[in-house]
Amino acid sequence: MPITITHFETRDLRFPTSLSGDGTDAMNTDCDYSAAYIILYTSSPDLVGQGLTFTIGRGNDIVCSAIKEVANRLIGKEVESLFENMGAAWDYLVADSQLRWIGPEKGVIHIATGAVDNALWDLFAKSRKKPLWKLIVDMSPEEFVKATTFRYITDVITPEEAIEMLKAKEASKKEREEKVRELGYPAYITSAGWLGYSDEKVVRLTKEAIAAGFNHFKMKVGANREDDLRRGKLIRSLIDDPQYLPAGKKPGDPNSPELKGKNAGPTGSVLMIDANQVWDVQPAIDYVKYLEPIKPWFIEEPTAPDDILGHAAIRKALKPYGIGVATGEHAHNRMVFKQLLQADAIDVCQIDSCRLAGVSEVLSVLLMAAKFGVPVCPHAGGIGLCEYTIHLSLIDYVVVSGSMERNALEFVYHLHEHFLHPCSLNSHARYNVPNHPDEGYSIEIRKSTIAEFEYPNGSYWVQAKANK
Amino acid sequence: MPITITHFETRDLRFPTSLSGDGTDAMNTDCDYSAAYIILYTSSPDLVGQGLTFTIGRGNDIVCSAIKEVANRLIGKEVESLFENMGAAWDYLVADSQLRWIGPEKGVIHIATGAVDNALWDLFAKSRKKPLWKLIVDMSPEEFVKATTFRYITDVITPEEAIEMLKAKEASKKEREEKVRELGYPAYITSAGWLGYSDEKVVRLTKEAIAAGFNHFKMKVGANREDDLRRGKLIRSLIDDPQYLPAGKKPGDPNSPELKGKNAGPTGSVLMIDANQVWDVQPAIDYVKYLEPIKPWFIEEPTAPDDILGHAAIRKALKPYGIGVATGEHAHNRMVFKQLLQADAIDVCQIDSCRLAGVSEVLSVLLMAAKFGVPVCPHAGGIGLCEYTIHLSLIDYVVVSGSMERNALEFVYHLHEHFLHPCSLNSHARYNVPNHPDEGYSIEIRKSTIAEFEYPNGSYWVQAKANK
Repeated sequence: MPITITHFETRDLRFPTSLSGDGTDAMNTDCDYSAAYIILYTSSPDLVGQGLTFTIGRGNDIVCSAIKEVANRLIGKEVESLFENMGAAWDYLVADSQLRWIGPEKGVIHIATGAVDNALWDLFAKSRKKPLWKLIVDMSPEEFVKATTFRYITDVITPEEAIEMLKAKEASKKEREEKVRELGYPAYITSAGWLGYSDEKVVRLTKEAIAAGFNHFKMKVGANREDDLRRGKLIRSLIDDPQYLPAGKKPGDPNSPELKGKNAGPTGSVLMIDANQVWDVQPAIDYVKYLEPIKPWFIEEPTAPDDILGHAAIRKALKPYGIGVATGEHAHNRMVFKQLLQADAIDVCQIDSCRLAGVSEVLSVLLMAAKFGVPVCPHAGGIGLCEYTIHLSLIDYVVVSGSMERNALEFVYHLHEHFLHPCSLNSHARYNVPNHPDEGYSIEIRKSTIAEFEYPNGSYWVQAKANK
Repeated sequence: MPITITHFETRDLRFPTSLSGDGTDAMNTDCDYSAAYIILYTSSPDLVGQGLTFTIGRGNDIVCSAIKEVANRLIGKEVESLFENMGAAWDYLVADSQLRWIGPEKGVIHIATGAVDNALWDLFAKSRKKPLWKLIVDMSPEEFVKATTFRYITDVITPEEAIEMLKAKEASKKEREEKVRELGYPAYITSAGWLGYSDEKVVRLTKEAIAAGFNHFKMKVGANREDDLRRGKLIRSLIDDPQYLPAGKKPGDPNSPELKGKNAGPTGSVLMIDANQVWDVQPAIDYVKYLEPIKPWFIEEPTAPDDILGHAAIRKALKPYGIGVATGEHAHNRMVFKQLLQADAIDVCQIDSCRLAGVSEVLSVLLMAAKFGVPVCPHAGGIGLCEYTIHLSLIDYVVVSGSMERNALEFVYHLHEHFLHPCSLNSHARYNVPNHPDEGYSIEIRKSTIAEFEYPNGSYWVQAKANK
């Protein structure tokens, strides 16, 4: 009997991060990090898939409702015929003739599709007893391309062209896999620089991050430019000071491939700034110019995420100041990334693992970014995003771009304890390579977490309500 | 005591249009036209506002859930302070720090905001005993601009510039109001050309439309190019034939301001085609070139609605063939329209009254389109869209663009009977001007309709289930 998808459940999980100021920035002032979580069951009791989409609180229930509508489309399907053509499975998931209207391919219905597609990929990887990244890097170029969606992007990349690109990297992929297993994948840290933190807390966390081995640091900006300049100078004074380097660590070379063009300071440290979409185009340019003394590598999300031409204008205006532009965590589908690349609007491509509708759409963006030579540095943090994105960066490095020199994958310390297979860093503050045969896409949440943080009836929320 | 917003109700209304093939096109193959409907109550029993967002079936409940989240933000607010600054009210509605994430400003949460903002405007208009369009055209330029949102578009238009534009049109606005009251507002018809209809039905409906006075006709394309060419020739053979003109109607002059550049045939009839996003960029170009013999004025939605640069490429490629490009019914916010205009991607700007998040955002797009000299021809049809959009076209004509020569507002015959103040056409197939002091935004739905078509417990749906 072929294995089929029989049923699913969704869980509205919310974590009270607003209480600590974690995750605060100029736009998102009181986030409760949340997961709209799905468990996909099959006719085989041993084969269960998990997926989630990240939100920041209110509306997480709406996303759960949308997940139900999308996941319903999988009931009764044979898993092997889905796995055989994951690109077609993705096209099918987004193609409901009525649900399409409330997107299309954007917002609630698209991020819900992300949770479902990711759960399906999780199932696929587990069925093959491989972590997701390994499942994909072991594919032939033809299999990879079949698993990717190309609709609406063939003016920039065709399946045939993608196969050629992947073939060119095939001979050396084993070597890269070994290298990244040994070295780990480069990371940067955001945990130190939230707007909601006091200067004291920022100093303490920055010193800890330096001690942990980080050399890329991101700071939130956009509420007040004098404050940002002051805080930026404070962070730079710490990360540029050799005295805080961990014992035995040598300063990085600003002319090395890893650091060139990133405005690295004397210790080889890089600062990035993130405005979370607070500005119009000209105000973005003016504000970031004012922050030129702290020499950021890039400004992230300077304006509305839909404004491709706005990002292009900002990038052009900031180029003489040596400051780049990054965006993508709110770029809602592959067509937005296509245009960001076509319009020369970004220096760094920040895909999101569940803003895009899951792995099949991510693969299409990895291919386009590689074609344009733009490094992919996924958005992570939130809840589960670090667990997800290490897989995506490994796929990018091992078989797509073939490079991890310019890349840095976001890392945030919060909420990893809720996962059965949490991501981890090595002693050089680089991501370890997920390696458990049963971890799939590494997104399974502990039962105890669900019991505590399911909203509104988990024990934490019941208690919080009682204490009000 | 100041009047406040006290509570609201939402209604999931669905109409079984899939049974008749109404509304079918190459992408949307089985629409059940639906409305996510809200009734806003105030502390004054005489002051009640209505709004809706249009969907095509499944997912309408998800939109209703999102409407609840957005409308909750209005509870307890004083209506006069909202009315005093509707631009600020709009900014407030889209700015929930947690809900923003599941957009931002797109998809479910944005179209839900459209229903709520429209209900608020409906309330405003009713409180002043004017239909919505009249409320707005009677505003001073300063009041108009205060009611508009400018966030993220100031690189293209500032409030100051908008005031200047509106002032330039002020002296003549009375004259235009009188003219349109007398002549009505130009319309085009889509009802004849749905893909789901047989050739016989298309012939009958086209003849009826010609007899009713229409001279702009839209046909759905994209499923099969040979069929489209054949059907297009069939429609052209009818609309180009003087014998079908109503008694006493003279053929239009293809060189008149109304028809110039629209590929009008010998009787002054114009044909438009609509692909509802089915193609990638190059296939769109190839397909539409093939349809050149039927001489369409424009191709509507040739590709993904997010693909601004793709639309620009298609427009450039079709220009030598004299075929224009129109889009907008799925352009999800003002930033998309801003870029469509900046990139010279469209000949016709098709705003949607509830895909955009209500009147305040629509006003910003009207201003930008007028600045770029691109005519606004709103998307209508569905359910309630004709009722809504006649107001928007009147605002555009009387105080913003000052022109209705190039414009044609979509008209579809379906579902008007469900409204208390349905839109109507005059004997020249032009929209009549809404004129009832209590009709507000003309979107109030009859109680009997709610009892019949509320999903899933209205009498129609209960019966349909029983008959299954």
